[in-house]
Amino acid sequence: MLKPGIARILSLLVVAGCILPAGGRLSAQTETLPVMPLPAHVVAGQGQFVIDGSFNLALHGYTEPRLERARTRFLMRLSRETGIPLWREAQFNQAHFIVETGGASKPVQQLGEDESYHLEISSAQVRLTAPNPLGVLHGLQTFLQLVRITPQGFSVPAVTIDDQPRFPWRGLMIDSSRHFMPIPTIERTLDGMEAAKLNVLHWHISDDQGFRAESLKFPLLQKDGSDGLYYTQDQIGEVINYARDRGIRVVPEFDMPCHTQSWLVGYPKLAAGPGPYHIATHMGVHDAAMDPTKESTYKFIDTFIGEMAELFPDTYFHIGGDECNGKEWNSNPQIQSYMHAHGIASNAALQAYFTARVQKLVARHHKIMEGWDEVLQPGTPKDVVIQSWRGQASLAEAARQGNRGILSTGYYIDLNQPAGEHYLVDPLGGDAASLTPEQKKLVLGGEATMWAEYVSPENIDSRIWPRTLAIAERLWSPQDVRDVGSMYKRLAIVAQKLESCGIDPRAETDAMLQRMSGNGDPEALKVLAAVVEPPEGYTRNDHTNFNTFTPLNRLVDAVPPESVTGREFQQLAEAIASGQASQQQWQQARRWLTLWRDNDARLQPLLSKSSITEELIPVSHNLKEVAVIGLQALDALENHGSIAADQRERDLKTVQAAAKQQATLLDAVAPSVELLVQATKSE
Amino acid sequence: MLKPGIARILSLLVVAGCILPAGGRLSAQTETLPVMPLPAHVVAGQGQFVIDGSFNLALHGYTEPRLERARTRFLMRLSRETGIPLWREAQFNQAHFIVETGGASKPVQQLGEDESYHLEISSAQVRLTAPNPLGVLHGLQTFLQLVRITPQGFSVPAVTIDDQPRFPWRGLMIDSSRHFMPIPTIERTLDGMEAAKLNVLHWHISDDQGFRAESLKFPLLQKDGSDGLYYTQDQIGEVINYARDRGIRVVPEFDMPCHTQSWLVGYPKLAAGPGPYHIATHMGVHDAAMDPTKESTYKFIDTFIGEMAELFPDTYFHIGGDECNGKEWNSNPQIQSYMHAHGIASNAALQAYFTARVQKLVARHHKIMEGWDEVLQPGTPKDVVIQSWRGQASLAEAARQGNRGILSTGYYIDLNQPAGEHYLVDPLGGDAASLTPEQKKLVLGGEATMWAEYVSPENIDSRIWPRTLAIAERLWSPQDVRDVGSMYKRLAIVAQKLESCGIDPRAETDAMLQRMSGNGDPEALKVLAAVVEPPEGYTRNDHTNFNTFTPLNRLVDAVPPESVTGREFQQLAEAIASGQASQQQWQQARRWLTLWRDNDARLQPLLSKSSITEELIPVSHNLKEVAVIGLQALDALENHGSIAADQRERDLKTVQAAAKQQATLLDAVAPSVELLVQATKSE
Repeated sequence: MLKPGIARILSLLVVAGCILPAGGRLSAQTETLPVMPLPAHVVAGQGQFVIDGSFNLALHGYTEPRLERARTRFLMRLSRETGIPLWREAQFNQAHFIVETGGASKPVQQLGEDESYHLEISSAQVRLTAPNPLGVLHGLQTFLQLVRITPQGFSVPAVTIDDQPRFPWRGLMIDSSRHFMPIPTIERTLDGMEAAKLNVLHWHISDDQGFRAESLKFPLLQKDGSDGLYYTQDQIGEVINYARDRGIRVVPEFDMPCHTQSWLVGYPKLAAGPGPYHIATHMGVHDAAMDPTKESTYKFIDTFIGEMAELFPDTYFHIGGDECNGKEWNSNPQIQSYMHAHGIASNAALQAYFTARVQKLVARHHKIMEGWDEVLQPGTPKDVVIQSWRGQASLAEAARQGNRGILSTGYYIDLNQPAGEHYLVDPLGGDAASLTPEQKKLVLGGEATMWAEYVSPENIDSRIWPRTLAIAERLWSPQDVRDVGSMYKRLAIVAQKLESCGIDPRAETDAMLQRMSGNGDPEALKVLAAVVEPPEGYTRNDHTNFNTFTPLNRLVDAVPPESVTGREFQQLAEAIASGQASQQQWQQARRWLTLWRDNDARLQPLLSKSSITEELIPVSHNLKEVAVIGLQALDALENHGSIAADQRERDLKTVQAAAKQQATLLDAVAPSVELLVQATKSE
Repeated sequence: MLKPGIARILSLLVVAGCILPAGGRLSAQTETLPVMPLPAHVVAGQGQFVIDGSFNLALHGYTEPRLERARTRFLMRLSRETGIPLWREAQFNQAHFIVETGGASKPVQQLGEDESYHLEISSAQVRLTAPNPLGVLHGLQTFLQLVRITPQGFSVPAVTIDDQPRFPWRGLMIDSSRHFMPIPTIERTLDGMEAAKLNVLHWHISDDQGFRAESLKFPLLQKDGSDGLYYTQDQIGEVINYARDRGIRVVPEFDMPCHTQSWLVGYPKLAAGPGPYHIATHMGVHDAAMDPTKESTYKFIDTFIGEMAELFPDTYFHIGGDECNGKEWNSNPQIQSYMHAHGIASNAALQAYFTARVQKLVARHHKIMEGWDEVLQPGTPKDVVIQSWRGQASLAEAARQGNRGILSTGYYIDLNQPAGEHYLVDPLGGDAASLTPEQKKLVLGGEATMWAEYVSPENIDSRIWPRTLAIAERLWSPQDVRDVGSMYKRLAIVAQKLESCGIDPRAETDAMLQRMSGNGDPEALKVLAAVVEPPEGYTRNDHTNFNTFTPLNRLVDAVPPESVTGREFQQLAEAIASGQASQQQWQQARRWLTLWRDNDARLQPLLSKSSITEELIPVSHNLKEVAVIGLQALDALENHGSIAADQRERDLKTVQAAAKQQATLLDAVAPSVELLVQATKSE
């Protein structure tokens, strides 16, 4: 998917707004460094630092085992990036990479700790200095992203970087409930988060479809509340240690009082409804809710939070609080009479009562509560952190009330939006732009959310990556870094580097396409797969029949949320339609359209052989039709000719029809072909 | 690489020699089942068994935790093969797959245990019966290989299989010394071995370049004898358990008295030479040797074997014994006088004396000794197992002396031979063919050997797989199963299935090619990579400078040992040259040659940008020249025309020159193009 030309970007740097040409020399190449997130401050140097078998890294100043492990991990990844064996025992080499650490960070990583670092690369040596290990971790990742192959071997460009994050809370939420994500998947994701300089794993570990954490106090939570797939306390501890090694906090979320159907299977006494309860297998909002009017509910929650507060050392504790439909409360006479007796006028007020009670329990166990934006009510205690998801306004509203908050509206990576859209959402944009400077300080950052309705361990990498890198940059880099074109160029390069973290969405997609093809050659299917996308939003056409047992093995599950080829073709189409295309762009457009036109004949005989490719028969056919029309439009445009009015009309209709969802897929090319046809003259 | 047509092979079966058509119906398709190793006995059934979300498997009869784990593993792999969620907790489904196990196998897996199984698949149900868990493990693997996608969904064909191995010792040797292989690499390899029904991991765990096992009695072995990369005793135990779960024995090899340079770093008193010793970094035969004349040597070995005999429960213990050059013995006056005093006439006799002493120690610790064929001497005790590597004759010689033996000659997978060559090497072929039936029983089987001079954790999968499947079939299937064409067809299908074991050599190669391309598009490099091969044997042109720190990141390291495209093109060229090619074959040959001709222009601009692709400039250029000549030859052959004699002469010279090794690579296409030119008429 990557264009050869991008290789050249690697050479020299300079960030818009931070240009300080070395020695007064303004580089002819004003491209940015191929790094994500883009550092706060970059000064170009002269020459490059070459990495060969004599490379070694030394830790100076403060040290601790975590730094030793970071060094080993760094050398292993550098080895994977270069193929050069760089074992930690190669002590006979003189270190040309010196890491200088000022002191320790907090024993439990805290929100707002100093994460800055200073990285100085000359042709002779590299110096990375940071006040504490957190900055060291970030600086090592920046260095890894700078590594490129040149005629002189592997090297990094000479450069001086002063870097620090814009926001202190930069998270990724993983939903382990709807589809269980095994430990290696979680750990691989943490590796990717480290590369992206994200610092919070928000672990959505219970929901209607499964309770995934082991409780020793209430073992029926995981025993009756899961299909056997849950994390033991040892495993959870392992993940927390793994995350700490990478400068990442782990904030658990135990969603309540709703999204609790799985809790109620083993502990029906907590419930507002009569039961019996089963683990939910369908998605969407369920009625199951805790009973907020019983003291026993709070006793249970107190003991439970006590246990979990010890297991998860982070200061913050997420209690969810989203999507209560109130049905079980409405139909429970005892709850109704309790509300009446206590002057609780609405279900929202009942939930506010519940939240206030739970907040006290959370505080009792020395934690700060976090919740989805439903928990923001007039009386919400000031230290509760609000996670905005129903619209950016709630973040501003929280700040005006004096509550801190983080943004997830606009960062829902399960919605299949393009990276460029997420990228332009700013935590201090929208309503928050009008906050006072003091109120703005209450906006802590944001979190990408990987809800797992349509995600399995097999395809989660392609859902999270590379798009989450764009969100990570928004949360780290200066606010004025928002050139979408530059972002996409760097995204393509940095995404590739995730392979050395074991994250390789393309291999994932390839394996799924191979499976769909049986033992056939998947090449023609790959051509189709490159230009279709899942539709945005929760619009899978089989939604009603969809459940947790539904195989996620269709083309919609295999392809990335965003078609790179589709986006690149769109750029070609725009250039051609506006009469500004180069000859090379004309040729590329023709080459692609020809490929798509001819692909159907190769692919059709295979599609009917497999029950999972049958649904693609019309999708492939449509792509061919669109391509034929696209080629005719190119002919007309190139010769300044025209298309007969009725033909042009038919073409537009065909292309518009082809742009409609089919087999839960969108043709990423059809809108661009429509653009080409629109650009032709009618006879 | 796979051709679409191969998909059809999946349908029905029938093995040559074992045809028992169901209901008297002889299938029109006399293709073999796409299974490796091919079962001993197969009867085709009617219809197919469909796998959907209601699939479940029940264990009847004897059971144990290992079988439960095998069931879980089976369901997980079946999930990965189909994308259908098949969790073990789905107990509400009625099991249509019944496993019936007769009883336990030995607490420590023994050579020659019953490994047979009976697998009966109808459209309604599956029954797998076996006398013990070993057969169950094998039967589950056969089932997994039968799974294919059809218009009716995922299914397996109805069939009845009675299966058992031809040889009881079917091994793979891993060299963890020359390049350390991490635990996940070892475990992934064990998964592949299980799929291939191999049952011995021969772990070559110490050599001149590194001592990789933790010894508590002699900790300097790993501390001074390795670069810090070694297996702890816990990890070794974990590997042994992992192997046992998969029906695989683990036989350790501690090579002695030579290949021991790493031992002598920490324990120079063992040495025949004066030292000091360092861990070897170069490959090849080293002089370092133990002193076989000192009693302290045997005391050390006795204690050491005692410790290792407890750690490795297998009955067999490999003491190496290969490649003693005797130089340190020759130059040590004490050893010379000892030999004189004891009438030891030669270094071979001295080694025989050493071997006999060590054999007693091995026996003292209740183990049976195994050694490379150098240990076979006139007086070798009868229970010593001989591993033939210097020629197949040693195996027959051992049998004639009454010693059991296994074959590795011909199974050296580090030599880059094609699978078809390994496949035709038979443990009872060559000199062994003339043994008596009783002597033949002493031939236990064979072992593929993965020596690790040129192998890293990054590319080991592509070295072992898929070729080792061909050797596995030789060791399991009936002797008369030796159709190379059928083997290659099935190999392509079964190789693909290893992906669900986490073994994906193509993804490995792709990642390496991407690295070589920097951020450029690797497509043109992939075209070149598909038609070059490493040369056979130990002929890397940089051999003298090569050491354990040399990066294995060149194209020769990335490409598989055998070019699939090269072999397929050879078939086309042979068909065309013999005048028997179909129109389709003509077209395919032309398509490929055109691709290769045009590829150079795309690739050349990229090659000079990277220090690791620069060496490919002439390789790509040669491919183009060869392709141009190939296309001209096709023109001449197609039109029954001819080529001018001098031109033809020049073409042949060019093609022959292009066939020579360059950048440690061979052009896998040039010999076939030469064939085409040879087939043309000269004017």
